[in-house]
Amino acid sequence: MTYPDAVESSTIAEMEETIARISSHKGVEGVMIMDRRGAIIQSTLDEEQTSTHAMILSELTTKVSSIVGMLNQDDELTFLRIRSKQREIMISPDNDFLLVVLQNPKSIE
Amino acid sequence: MTYPDAVESSTIAEMEETIARISSHKGVEGVMIMDRRGAIIQSTLDEEQTSTHAMILSELTTKVSSIVGMLNQDDELTFLRIRSKQREIMISPDNDFLLVVLQNPKSIE
Repeated sequence: MTYPDAVESSTIAEMEETIARISSHKGVEGVMIMDRRGAIIQSTLDEEQTSTHAMILSELTTKVSSIVGMLNQDDELTFLRIRSKQREIMISPDNDFLLVVLQNPKSIE
Repeated sequence: MTYPDAVESSTIAEMEETIARISSHKGVEGVMIMDRRGAIIQSTLDEEQTSTHAMILSELTTKVSSIVGMLNQDDELTFLRIRSKQREIMISPDNDFLLVVLQNPKSIE
């Protein structure tokens, strides 16, 4: 896997640890780390799923971040959770990166 | 308060009960019920805040619903949670309506 130039190797090691830890949780179907523009840094999904999710979810996060700032200019998005009948998408923006976790709620119950 | 024609009085009574129950929870700063296009049915926010939130959040919910269907056409949005530094916005689509709860996470801790 190739990384955007700005990602340092210590950061990558941390990300790999984070992904391994989250993936081991029950019901977790996929974990992705990307930059704010949707460039993939790490993903446990297949290539097609990764690129579809990265594009759509990075755009959505940008939109929601701007909505949060529009409703209150001192405010900032910290976590976005999209629950649907089939699964749950959790997006956690952290400085330059987005951490995305896809979870199947049925397999936790 | 005027209601869209389609809203029956039994439904309104239920909504008023729902709003009263949710508003009594600690940290809840506002509760709104609107239709899918953002027409307000009930709100505990002031007029300006209500109309700003209704417009922005109904549009956002439409967008997120379409994203959920785009990622998996058998899937459907059931709950959207936007956590920010200052507060939390929870949107629960239920048939023709959207229930929006604004909560201050700091006042719960």
